[in-house]
Amino acid sequence: MHRFFLTKNFQETMDITGPDAHHISKVLRMQVGDTLQIVSLDQICALMKIQDITSEQVTINLVEKIEENHEPSVKIILAQGLPKSDKMDFIVQKAVELGVSVICPVAMENSVVRLDTAKGEKKQLRWQKIAAEAAKQSKRDIVPQVMVPTSLTQILNEYKDVTTKIVAYEVEDKRSLKEVLQKPGNLTDILLLIGPEGGISKEELELAQGAGMTAVSLGRRILRTETAGLAAIAAILYETGNLGG
Amino acid sequence: MHRFFLTKNFQETMDITGPDAHHISKVLRMQVGDTLQIVSLDQICALMKIQDITSEQVTINLVEKIEENHEPSVKIILAQGLPKSDKMDFIVQKAVELGVSVICPVAMENSVVRLDTAKGEKKQLRWQKIAAEAAKQSKRDIVPQVMVPTSLTQILNEYKDVTTKIVAYEVEDKRSLKEVLQKPGNLTDILLLIGPEGGISKEELELAQGAGMTAVSLGRRILRTETAGLAAIAAILYETGNLGG
Repeated sequence: MHRFFLTKNFQETMDITGPDAHHISKVLRMQVGDTLQIVSLDQICALMKIQDITSEQVTINLVEKIEENHEPSVKIILAQGLPKSDKMDFIVQKAVELGVSVICPVAMENSVVRLDTAKGEKKQLRWQKIAAEAAKQSKRDIVPQVMVPTSLTQILNEYKDVTTKIVAYEVEDKRSLKEVLQKPGNLTDILLLIGPEGGISKEELELAQGAGMTAVSLGRRILRTETAGLAAIAAILYETGNLGG
Repeated sequence: MHRFFLTKNFQETMDITGPDAHHISKVLRMQVGDTLQIVSLDQICALMKIQDITSEQVTINLVEKIEENHEPSVKIILAQGLPKSDKMDFIVQKAVELGVSVICPVAMENSVVRLDTAKGEKKQLRWQKIAAEAAKQSKRDIVPQVMVPTSLTQILNEYKDVTTKIVAYEVEDKRSLKEVLQKPGNLTDILLLIGPEGGISKEELELAQGAGMTAVSLGRRILRTETAGLAAIAAILYETGNLGG
């Protein structure tokens, strides 16, 4: 069953226009009477039937609202140090599939890639599109937001009220991820900082720790930046009962 | 520090030849007196110093044996339904980084790719090379073995004595991964079966369950085949204290 994210609030009869209308009519070649799933802007999931279809506009009617919830109970904000080449594409796709809520690319000391404002905004559009595709494919109820690349200071400030703040740090062998995740208290939202290829600098670590982040080890093997984030996200979802828990 | 896997048993003075000798002398441009790490065939890790170097042969002497252990306490055998295009390259790289011991590509009903014996053997060589690279990079103490593609029946037979056998199955919503992993008993070795893009067929599921596999859900989001395996591996490592536990 195909799922579409609409940018309007829910109504019993709705029109789909733009690229989605083209996709439904020309690519999927759906017909009057066929059904599809939608998620409206006000996050109502529903099964809808096609009443009228052209390549510009698809009119759909409510069959039934869907009560299923595909969202994890924990809100994960991934702050990812900007990695090389197209690795960020991959990280966005996989993080959205797994279940993160927000992805913040962070320009860090060891990030090889440098993006000015214009390039950063262009990249953000690309990543947001990848996020939307991954959300569709994995049947998420929301499209997670990808932010424009920003500084570590800004991220730490913006998410200062998040209850659990974790930074993966290679040489940290005292605190384990499990120790932090199993600490009494509710795991409602988690800010997870992953360094770029060259790792997190000492100054950045101090900055993060000064803002209340706990440095944790992800084990005795050296994980690439894109693997570290995904492994940590999977572990957080597992611990909180959101990975088939 | 660069790490090399040697195909000889440990001795206090050893010669490195072949591509590794070329890599050390010509690519890394190491010199007499420089140090490197080796893992011998009998799995001894050691810091060695270069005594003599040409592009064909590097003679090294023991500085000290290294007692560190980078291997997880649980042996994970990943049986991966053959995926499309070059996705298996990616799965091998990430699974080795995370810490699996053996990877078995499995020709399944919904596998789009069909490999005859010759092609399968060629692919195996390629995957084994990727595994060796990933083992080096992540500082594993072993190079995990990648098998030639085989049938599900063969895999189930070969690993029939493994204590915990899990198959990820989308529509399974009764048993959770956590429930199986937290069952009393030692998690010493785990056989993990992941279907290809089209999923596992009903007949294959019955075959797997008949061989003692437990079907588990990985949560309410639909994960791509390459994401499902990595998420399950990360969860197993986390549960067993091997992901910074």
